[in-house]
Amino acid sequence: MLRFEIKARDGAARSGRVTTAHGTFATPAFMPVGTYGTVKALTPAQLEDVGAQIVLANTFHLMLRPGDQIVADLGGLHGFMSWPGPILTDSGGFQVWSLGALRKLSEEGVDFKSPINGDRVFLSPEISMRVQRNLGADIVMAFDECTAYPATHAQARESMELSVRWALRSRAAHADNPAALFGIVQGGMYADLRAESLAQLTTIGFDGYAIGGLSVGESKDEMHAVLDALLPQMPQQHPRYLMGVGTPVDLLDAVSRGVDMFDCVLPTRNARNGYLFTSQGVLKIRNAQHRDSPAPLDSNCDCYACTKFSRGYLHHLDRCGEILASVLMSIHNVHYYQTLMRRLREAIEMGTFRSLIETLHNGWKSLG
Amino acid sequence: MLRFEIKARDGAARSGRVTTAHGTFATPAFMPVGTYGTVKALTPAQLEDVGAQIVLANTFHLMLRPGDQIVADLGGLHGFMSWPGPILTDSGGFQVWSLGALRKLSEEGVDFKSPINGDRVFLSPEISMRVQRNLGADIVMAFDECTAYPATHAQARESMELSVRWALRSRAAHADNPAALFGIVQGGMYADLRAESLAQLTTIGFDGYAIGGLSVGESKDEMHAVLDALLPQMPQQHPRYLMGVGTPVDLLDAVSRGVDMFDCVLPTRNARNGYLFTSQGVLKIRNAQHRDSPAPLDSNCDCYACTKFSRGYLHHLDRCGEILASVLMSIHNVHYYQTLMRRLREAIEMGTFRSLIETLHNGWKSLG
Repeated sequence: MLRFEIKARDGAARSGRVTTAHGTFATPAFMPVGTYGTVKALTPAQLEDVGAQIVLANTFHLMLRPGDQIVADLGGLHGFMSWPGPILTDSGGFQVWSLGALRKLSEEGVDFKSPINGDRVFLSPEISMRVQRNLGADIVMAFDECTAYPATHAQARESMELSVRWALRSRAAHADNPAALFGIVQGGMYADLRAESLAQLTTIGFDGYAIGGLSVGESKDEMHAVLDALLPQMPQQHPRYLMGVGTPVDLLDAVSRGVDMFDCVLPTRNARNGYLFTSQGVLKIRNAQHRDSPAPLDSNCDCYACTKFSRGYLHHLDRCGEILASVLMSIHNVHYYQTLMRRLREAIEMGTFRSLIETLHNGWKSLG
Repeated sequence: MLRFEIKARDGAARSGRVTTAHGTFATPAFMPVGTYGTVKALTPAQLEDVGAQIVLANTFHLMLRPGDQIVADLGGLHGFMSWPGPILTDSGGFQVWSLGALRKLSEEGVDFKSPINGDRVFLSPEISMRVQRNLGADIVMAFDECTAYPATHAQARESMELSVRWALRSRAAHADNPAALFGIVQGGMYADLRAESLAQLTTIGFDGYAIGGLSVGESKDEMHAVLDALLPQMPQQHPRYLMGVGTPVDLLDAVSRGVDMFDCVLPTRNARNGYLFTSQGVLKIRNAQHRDSPAPLDSNCDCYACTKFSRGYLHHLDRCGEILASVLMSIHNVHYYQTLMRRLREAIEMGTFRSLIETLHNGWKSLG
């Protein structure tokens, strides 16, 4: 089941609420990525503390380790990772695509060599639906092929059409799974192909529509052109999910165009590398200037890391390779993303979205 | 300042309470080790949750990284690591000793090559006292030389006598530091030297007395022989601290002989390696048998890891090298140690110490 209510609009931006079998989440929503059934470095309690309402997990990784049957036997992802709230799983399509030469594509599906143990593995719409059902996701993604970048119009068409046929098979294989199913719009950087993909998917009918095949190497202008052409055509009454994006600026750009959902490894991966998002821009904790700084990462932040620890301490932990560095900086970055989304939602509801965007941009300048 | 009250005795075992400038801790106490100003993988909030009341930090490591002056400038260890409770720092003597050939010993102190950057560094009683004061410890340890194992009687005497002279210099250099100062009994495996060391230290006068130079390669029988000979001679009215020890069985053996304080990296280091202490013995999470187990690590444990996650999930996290594996297993092991100490204290107070020891031993059998 899935219910989507739009509470407010400000320009093309929308603030809403999605209800799933495991509770609700507010949109625009940012989903931290829990690849192997853990948002790296964070306990579910910390994840909840920083304001996350829904998490994403990766079908591809979990079917290889520990295997979806084990996850199912241990209570599905909700029980397995002890996250009681909504969970979205991707279909594995993007990960298979990123294997490059290790995969072999056919109409039926994708044959690939497991990067874990070298075993031959096969993924298809039917298998992806079965795996995602075993994982127990509240929102299941259709199995698609991510179009390469760059691609000729002919290549992008062929790829998009395959994704549409797979979307149809995903819809059929999803069958009586009570979870929601989202279709994924492909078509590369070509507006006509994107429109055709969307038209076909809305004809099949999904609970939500995702935009795939972006953040694959294209320029910001190209991404914006795709969003500008596509979003006005997307059904108003369904959630719109921009996959794998992005930086705080990317999120503003997309929310202002009407996107409702996001996921990205950026906040957690960058945290582990000492790149912190703050109200004044990116702070690199490894810089020597932070060595003896008593200041918090962000004096405008009320996360556990900022209220309890100094930049000097975090610089030290990072330098010593301490696990606590990853933990505290992940807390901060995920909190930053969640707080950003909350502020966007509130501004949309109050009709002050444009001025918030301006305030945010004025604050961001590279800190070093 | 330091106040020590003994609340109850059961045989030679004592239950008490130590009051420092940063609050109190109950004894027998286990101090988790926070080498670089962080108990590895745990936030201070988690440390408090699992029942830790005092933590230990390492002078040697902190003077090299980030440097004790930076710690002092960032609020001392309490502010730096955001731990408001009691903190004990070791003197650096043991770490310098473990450098082996990299150090050069003289009457004045120890010259060594920093393992971090190769710089020449000098440690002496006076420098150790100054560093520990900069760190802001509530309990400061005298600078000593850890006697090698094995050592001839003559070698052990020479080493012990040097430690006594250094203890005297430590006492003088501690000066008006309001923190408590503990002396460290040395003397290798020789009862007469241990007795002489203790006599000299009590003449100088310290707030507590530690037993150093154990857990350095000797057999359990040798360690017990030293404790059996030494403990009855140690002042009743001061805390007794057995340094660097040890396993749960070691703790029982020492508490039953009248030891009040312990520190050891075992619970945290073993946690990161997947060795978990449970009421039924050691559980090795990497064993394949746990792959699909829905059971908690220990059904008798109420820590966050045991109440929220299965062995199957922890096995998976460990296999994937996830940070959360280290976090959850460290929570469990430190909680196990803290709960063990609490049970020992309660049993001493109720006069049921012997029967608790028997119950614990009956429970422990290797789990695999």
